[in-house]
Order: sequence, then structure tokens, then C-alpha cells
Amino acid sequence: MTTNEAAVLLRAHDGIQLVTHTHPDGDTLCSAAALCSMLRRMGKRAWLFPNPEITEKFQPLTAAFLADGSETAAYTVSVDVAGTEMFCPGFSGAVDLAIDHHPKNPGFAAATLLRGEKASTGEIILELADALGCGVTPEEATLLYIALSTDCGCFCYGNTGADTHRAAARLMDLGANHRWVNKQFFRSFSFPRLKLEGMIFATLRSYRDNQINIAVITLDMMRESGATEDDCDDLASLAGKVRGNVVSITVREIAPGRSKASVRTNELVDASAVCAVFGGGGHKMASGCTVDLPPQTLADRMLDTVNEIWK
Amino acid sequence: MTTNEAAVLLRAHDGIQLVTHTHPDGDTLCSAAALCSMLRRMGKRAWLFPNPEITEKFQPLTAAFLADGSETAAYTVSVDVAGTEMFCPGFSGAVDLAIDHHPKNPGFAAATLLRGEKASTGEIILELADALGCGVTPEEATLLYIALSTDCGCFCYGNTGADTHRAAARLMDLGANHRWVNKQFFRSFSFPRLKLEGMIFATLRSYRDNQINIAVITLDMMRESGATEDDCDDLASLAGKVRGNVVSITVREIAPGRSKASVRTNELVDASAVCAVFGGGGHKMASGCTVDLPPQTLADRMLDTVNEIWK
Repeated sequence: MTTNEAAVLLRAHDGIQLVTHTHPDGDTLCSAAALCSMLRRMGKRAWLFPNPEITEKFQPLTAAFLADGSETAAYTVSVDVAGTEMFCPGFSGAVDLAIDHHPKNPGFAAATLLRGEKASTGEIILELADALGCGVTPEEATLLYIALSTDCGCFCYGNTGADTHRAAARLMDLGANHRWVNKQFFRSFSFPRLKLEGMIFATLRSYRDNQINIAVITLDMMRESGATEDDCDDLASLAGKVRGNVVSITVREIAPGRSKASVRTNELVDASAVCAVFGGGGHKMASGCTVDLPPQTLADRMLDTVNEIWK
Repeated sequence: MTTNEAAVLLRAHDGIQLVTHTHPDGDTLCSAAALCSMLRRMGKRAWLFPNPEITEKFQPLTAAFLADGSETAAYTVSVDVAGTEMFCPGFSGAVDLAIDHHPKNPGFAAATLLRGEKASTGEIILELADALGCGVTPEEATLLYIALSTDCGCFCYGNTGADTHRAAARLMDLGANHRWVNKQFFRSFSFPRLKLEGMIFATLRSYRDNQINIAVITLDMMRESGATEDDCDDLASLAGKVRGNVVSITVREIAPGRSKASVRTNELVDASAVCAVFGGGGHKMASGCTVDLPPQTLADRMLDTVNEIWK
């Protein structure tokens, strides 16, 4: 459906509940919060389904929009949710309208506004604001700038296109506090996170001319750095930052004698074939497995496996 | 002068030598290379003065444009050079036209195209291409995208504005290979650099609720990581990445018993007052000193000094 058709649906309804995805990120939370703010300015009752997994960083941004328990939803909209298995814990109802940018969205909702070419759902909400004719406040522009910039890795992931930059420029013109967002999300990090990253890189091992890179994260490193799960976003991407990397393996000790591995590759190596040897699986370029072995032992065996599979 | 007036000057001359700045970065080198390519496509003889400090990363991007020694310059243009003290080693001549975005440019050239509101000189060259009517090839767009994106920290430094994003969008439309640039400059790093960063963060010390952060870089760490000077860009910014940072101190051992410190602060603390105690100086928010002390000892004394100055 078109953005205008979705706007007609939203205009026609009231008591609108917005649902976000599990392990919620900037795009799902801030896109939903911005849309909620717009709908309220249009005189509607609207709120975010209370996703129990909202992390500390996003709590101040979403608090004003969360359901307080007294609401009864008359219309349900999912925001940035790629499939029903991605609903946040606690939500299992029917969705009237899905707003999403994931091309794989199977169309689980009664109506779907899918724009697979967008780097973020935030950009769809920006266009929806035009279709709704409600304008965009500076606070909403800041929320949408968070949605957009976090989903494209601050304009450096492969999903960034010319239109991503044009949307960012427009949000800045609308008053987005981009300096605050950039500082908060891309230029400052918790002390435990930096400590943990430091330990990971200080002990990183590299093989075959930096083509294979292995990071090991032990329970001792978690303790010593003081890192909590909040500090552990995307650790599996760190080893792949080495120039020349083809296969990166990240092994994390999850209990004494038990470890979880993530394997990321480019098109030269099948990550799922590597993980299948250890009873795991996944995609060709991103797979995982969980094995009853100490992390260092699992790392060594996975290196042997990669060397066998990729000659 | 206006961009159109600068274009008139460039059109009127031939035998054009382009001068870049000392410790050359992406903006000076790639802006100059792109302009050189445009001038050559206009049928002119043009070349880059051979800056001896071009690092490995930029050599393939500039090689085709460097002077081969047979040229005699009839017109000299400086690109992204903020003052005569910034000329690359070997150049000491007069400049006919300076193209720059540093507001502090004192006007050392016979003519100056200064656009202080731009995040990069690359954006000025893009507008100059319009004024010259020469168009922009995909290769030139890639060079200008490097110039722009490196000077604004991939759109996350405070100098990034809506127009920065609009210029990026335009360069992508013109065929800039932004995915390659982003991977090369922002998503992959040398193994020694990552090792060294790891060691720095793993040993980072933090005081007063993460407001004071101290990094120490010893000669042993340099040896153990295998890092060379090429891997040492902007190490003084790392300690300031801690959330809540006010004062970051980076102490680097430059010889046994001799250390160099960089102090970065926000407006709450005068960095130059801290460094003055150790015989150094600089600016209020970025200062330095070199002292005959082992790095750890200097770090401890500087911490004491900060605690005395900032109660």
C-alpha cells in the first residue's frame, strides 16, 4: 500500500496502539515514539505497547509514550517489526497496519506499508508525516534522526543511500538535535564497554594474513570490565573490523565449560557450513553454534574447521 | 571571493600546481586530486605538488596526479591549507589562489576562496565543478566523498550540517563509490591499530564518576602491537570516548624516561592551565606538554594537577 493509503487508515482510527520488536533498537522505538507523538498532536489517543526490553538508553526517549495500563486498543500498528516472531514479549495480538522497511516482511498484518528500499522505518514515518499533513516537531525530528542514523550505522553501513542523506538533511532542517544524538549514540560509550572492547582487541588473534580473525570473550573479561548485557551490543562485529578480514569468529563463554560462537564471513566462505560441524547453523554470511567446550578450545577447533573448509 | 570568481581565475590559467597541507588528510589530498582531475579534463596541465608525507592509504588515490619533476608551475593553488605554516614540507612559494574552509585562514594568498561554513574543502570543489561547468566523474565524486566524509568523521562530528548531507547525497548520485570508501575508512582498521586501541582501552583509568579519563601508551605497547606512526592517528581522542568525560589525558612514552601528554577538555576545565604546570600549553580545550618523566608518573602527576585546578 502507498504512504497516502496508510495515512487514510491512521486518520480513520483512534485508540491506536503501536507495537515494537523484541531486542528493541533505535529504529523501532524512536519511529514508534515519533508516530505516537504525531497521532497525539492530531487529537488521537495513541500509545506504545510497553515493550519490557527497552534498555536504559531509550527509556527517557519513550517514557512519555508508553501505555499506562488503562487503555483499550481499537487499532494496532506494528513499527519496524519484520515478522510475528519478532513481536516484543507480551504482545501476541492481531496487527491492523504494519509499517516496515524489511524486504522479508511476509505481510502478517491486515494492511502493510512496506518500503524495502529505505534504510530505516524512520524515513517512512517522515514521509507519513507529510501524508498526514501533521508536520514534524523538533522533538519528533530528533526521534526520527535517531531511528535513521542508528539503523545505518551513522551513514556508514551498506544500506546508506543518497535518499538516506537527504532524509537526514531534512530532519536537521526540521530541528533535529543531531549533535546531541551523534554524541550520545556514536561518540560516547560506557566505561565497561570500552574496557571490554579493549580486552577483546588486545587478545584478538589473526591468521592467514588477517583473513581469519578470532575474538574470545571469557566470563573473567566480563567480570573484570564490569560489563552487563547492556554493554554487549554487536560484539560479534568487532573481529571483522580487521582490514583484510574474510572470516571472523567470536566465541563467548556463557557458563564454565560452555561457549557460544558467532561466525561472520563474506561470500568466499559459508559460515553455516562451519557452524554445522558444531551442531549449529544460520545464514551463509552469519551463523552460530553453542557448544559444551571452554571458549579457547572451541576457538581452536573452529579455526581448524575453517582451514579445512576454506583452503 | 565567490566560487564563480575562482572559476574564472582557474579557467584563465594553465600549468597549475596544487599544494596540500602537512600531515595530509583525506580532505586536502582528495580535494586536490579531484580538482586536478577536473582541470586535466578541461585540457589543462595540472598536478599535485609532491607532498612527502602522503601515507600509504592515500598513495593509490593520489599517485596519478603527482608532479613528475618536469613541470614548471605558472599558477599555484593551495587546497585546504589553513596558513603558510601548514604547507607541506618542500613548498615555500607564493600562492595565487587559496581554496579553504578553515575560518581562521588569514588570507595568505593573492586570492582566497574561503567558505568557513563548509565541513570540508571537498564541498567547495563540488561547487567549483558547477562553476567550471566541467561536470564530475564517478572517480572525482569518490575522491570528494572521501574528502567530505573523513573531515566530518563520517557525519558524526559537530561540523556536520544539513548541507553536508545534501552534498553527500549529490556525490552518491554522481556515482561516488561510497560503500568502498566507508569500508576502507570507517569500518576496517589495521590489525596493529586495533591491538593498540585494545591495549589502551584495557588499561584506561577513570576517576570522579568517569569525568577524568587517562590513557597511557608505552613503548612496550607500541612494540607488542606492532603499530607504526601510520597506525597512530588521533590516539589522543580515544580516552574522551567514555560517557561522562570532561577531561581526557593521553600520555605517550616517546623515549625511556620521556613522555608527551595531550589534554582534552570541555568548557568546564582549562586544558592549557593543566599543561602550563608542566611547561606546556595550547588551547583551552586541547593542550599538550613534553616532560622528562616515565609515562605512568606523568599521568599520576597530571591527575593531581587536574584535581587541584578543578575542584
